[in-house]
Amino acid sequence: MIGNLLMPELAELIRQRDFNGLREILCGFPPADIAEIFVDLKPDDEAVLLRLLPRDVAAEVFEHLPIEDQEKTLQALANEHVAQILNDISPDDRTRLLEELPAAATQKLLNLLSPEERKVATELLGYPKNSIGRRMTPHYVAVQQNWTVSEVFAELRKLEHKRDAMNQLYVVDAKGRLVDFVRLRNIVVALPQTSVLELLENQRLSLRATDDQETAVETFKKYGVTMVPVVDSNDVLLGVVTVDDILDVAEREATEDIQKLGGVQALDAPYLKTTLWAMVRKRAPWLTILFIGEMLTSVTMQNYGGEIKNAVALSFFMPLILSCGGNSGSQATSLIIRAMAVRDVLLADWWRVFRRELAGGFLLGVILAVIGAIRVCMWQWFHFWDYGPHYPLLAAVIGISLVGVVLWGSLAGAMLPFILRMVRLDPAVCSAPFVATLVDVTGLVIYFNVALWFLRGNML
Amino acid sequence: MIGNLLMPELAELIRQRDFNGLREILCGFPPADIAEIFVDLKPDDEAVLLRLLPRDVAAEVFEHLPIEDQEKTLQALANEHVAQILNDISPDDRTRLLEELPAAATQKLLNLLSPEERKVATELLGYPKNSIGRRMTPHYVAVQQNWTVSEVFAELRKLEHKRDAMNQLYVVDAKGRLVDFVRLRNIVVALPQTSVLELLENQRLSLRATDDQETAVETFKKYGVTMVPVVDSNDVLLGVVTVDDILDVAEREATEDIQKLGGVQALDAPYLKTTLWAMVRKRAPWLTILFIGEMLTSVTMQNYGGEIKNAVALSFFMPLILSCGGNSGSQATSLIIRAMAVRDVLLADWWRVFRRELAGGFLLGVILAVIGAIRVCMWQWFHFWDYGPHYPLLAAVIGISLVGVVLWGSLAGAMLPFILRMVRLDPAVCSAPFVATLVDVTGLVIYFNVALWFLRGNML
Repeated sequence: MIGNLLMPELAELIRQRDFNGLREILCGFPPADIAEIFVDLKPDDEAVLLRLLPRDVAAEVFEHLPIEDQEKTLQALANEHVAQILNDISPDDRTRLLEELPAAATQKLLNLLSPEERKVATELLGYPKNSIGRRMTPHYVAVQQNWTVSEVFAELRKLEHKRDAMNQLYVVDAKGRLVDFVRLRNIVVALPQTSVLELLENQRLSLRATDDQETAVETFKKYGVTMVPVVDSNDVLLGVVTVDDILDVAEREATEDIQKLGGVQALDAPYLKTTLWAMVRKRAPWLTILFIGEMLTSVTMQNYGGEIKNAVALSFFMPLILSCGGNSGSQATSLIIRAMAVRDVLLADWWRVFRRELAGGFLLGVILAVIGAIRVCMWQWFHFWDYGPHYPLLAAVIGISLVGVVLWGSLAGAMLPFILRMVRLDPAVCSAPFVATLVDVTGLVIYFNVALWFLRGNML
Repeated sequence: MIGNLLMPELAELIRQRDFNGLREILCGFPPADIAEIFVDLKPDDEAVLLRLLPRDVAAEVFEHLPIEDQEKTLQALANEHVAQILNDISPDDRTRLLEELPAAATQKLLNLLSPEERKVATELLGYPKNSIGRRMTPHYVAVQQNWTVSEVFAELRKLEHKRDAMNQLYVVDAKGRLVDFVRLRNIVVALPQTSVLELLENQRLSLRATDDQETAVETFKKYGVTMVPVVDSNDVLLGVVTVDDILDVAEREATEDIQKLGGVQALDAPYLKTTLWAMVRKRAPWLTILFIGEMLTSVTMQNYGGEIKNAVALSFFMPLILSCGGNSGSQATSLIIRAMAVRDVLLADWWRVFRRELAGGFLLGVILAVIGAIRVCMWQWFHFWDYGPHYPLLAAVIGISLVGVVLWGSLAGAMLPFILRMVRLDPAVCSAPFVATLVDVTGLVIYFNVALWFLRGNML
């Protein structure tokens, strides 16, 4: 937003090579805003501007750029500037960038790092994808458990550059194992000779580096914290994860769930940055699978070809009845998938959910059945259409089928996520269209069998 | 989880009225874990245990309880304990509870507060629902801009109880207007005579109390901060919002979007805590509206009654073709709605999205058309079914209809969120089932018109 307003002015300054003017304007903004301006620029201009900024500001701006812009900017920079930025940005943001690049590019960039930073970077990349280790930064402050407050102060003055993680000081024993943490503010107000052990928070909260990032989202939400220490299997302190990375993880998870629910494989990139081919590749498989599944409806209907020929009116209401099953199914499935994702509903709750959807589906079916039956009668009474003398039977068929289809749709939509989770699949792949397809095929069977039962000897 | 393991032991201790044993076990856990144990207890037992805990721990445990449990626990407590807890919990959590209660209950609880806390509570409740003011806490530390570091230290020692918001100290002018903030860690390492003004962060980030909470989510994500000051229209500092409240808001928004996408009004409560009637009330309106919309399919099909009677095979493929339109529409709509929610796609991008869905929908349609045409031919060649001598024409009708329906589904699904946003409605209410209904009606028209064009004089 800010970018768009300033853009003509900036473009003019770039054209005039007025680097001092540019630098002056940009430095008036926080790094996140400068990054927003950068996104709208050409990569070459981004590179020029990045070199103009003070070194620490440049690193912060770079951290705020989307991954794709980071890649393009690096390609436009000379090796020496690439090295400078990669060494300056915080290790967790660096991991985020490196893990997205092809192996060859990652190796090239690692070689540009200082030996110290390269060691940190390769260590972090050594953790599995989607593990907490990948989101970790080693920029924390550790203090020994036998220190006093004045020793802590002396350490803090030495470590001035560890900007990000100084609010919580992690207390470790002689072997580097995490004991607990103390809050900076408690250190501030304590007497100099106080022992660190007297100020411990007694929270003993930590995450394992190899655990999945979803665990971290849960922990941050449950305990309402902004920073959690990360340890290895021996409780040795390795780093910290901060809540800003976790907000990203939570948002990405919700996006994936929504996309899967819509019957798309997770895009893993913003919509407009995904190429047309990548988009088709993500959508075609599900669409094809659903299409092949839905072909069962043709086979099913071929069995009722004679009935349709005799009572064409039956086919008029087919899309109506099928869509109700699909709609009630997609309601149930989206409610349950989200409830599972935020842990409101657990696997053990399946029976409670079943009873609830049984009752709810029946009630919803009855509401629609009444409207549907009235619709048939109204058309007949007001001479919009002539369904023949047996129209009350047709109305009954429509109504009863609706109850059956909506009930079945609700149950199938609610139970599928449980079945998928039971066989250890992601419930979100049980997307709404998948439920709709399932319900279409069975809905036809319900509809035509109710019709056969009521109309045989009359309309059929 | 922890709760389930300990439950038998705790139940036994409660039965034996062994309050000291209970207190000892519970105090070994962080407040968030104690809250988890509480959720599985009866409200009366929750009340007993809450009274046993040290006053500050009790307040923290209460803050971690879900709203429904907070209500039940308060009902089980005597007025004096209710007053104690309400006075102790942090003002933002208190607002969350009070805003959910009926007006009479809120008034009764407000009367239990100390005059000072009552003033704070009524002020916060005075902000509009879903505004940032409602999530704000006034527990921040403000320092005057003309102070030195040693004056700040003196202030900090006085304010020891303001636990939550001491990492960032907000600098105000003589009229209470926000100037900027300083970080506690910079105060810690600075010399005592340094002026506060030398340590300013130069970030000038703030939120308006009357703005919508979604603005706050954006700000926290963009700037990667854990705490943002809240000001009024004159820039006077009113309070702070912290990232834990914002994580809740972001999660609630994603849940609402998923529920709306599934064709349900936002439940506003966990699935299993919603009563059956409330659930039916949230689902029936959309289901009925979609049902009435879908009734257009019956009217449409009545126009093609003669064609169906002559070529029953046309009806066999109807559910197949309609479902493909619905599926491609729900893919497009869920991609666009999510992309809009996370600001990857803006209103101004509609033309880029249109062109992309035009190309993508066409390609996806062609893929399905090929499969569909092969399906018709295979059934004929292998004598599974006899579609008559004109079966290649039928295959062509199926294929061409599929291209048309999938293309139309993709475009309609992608453009509806733009149209809704343009008329200032929430794009998420353009739920996948709504798109499916729209596509069903138009899909029928496409299908039967393609059939009339190709089959007139042959099968028709």
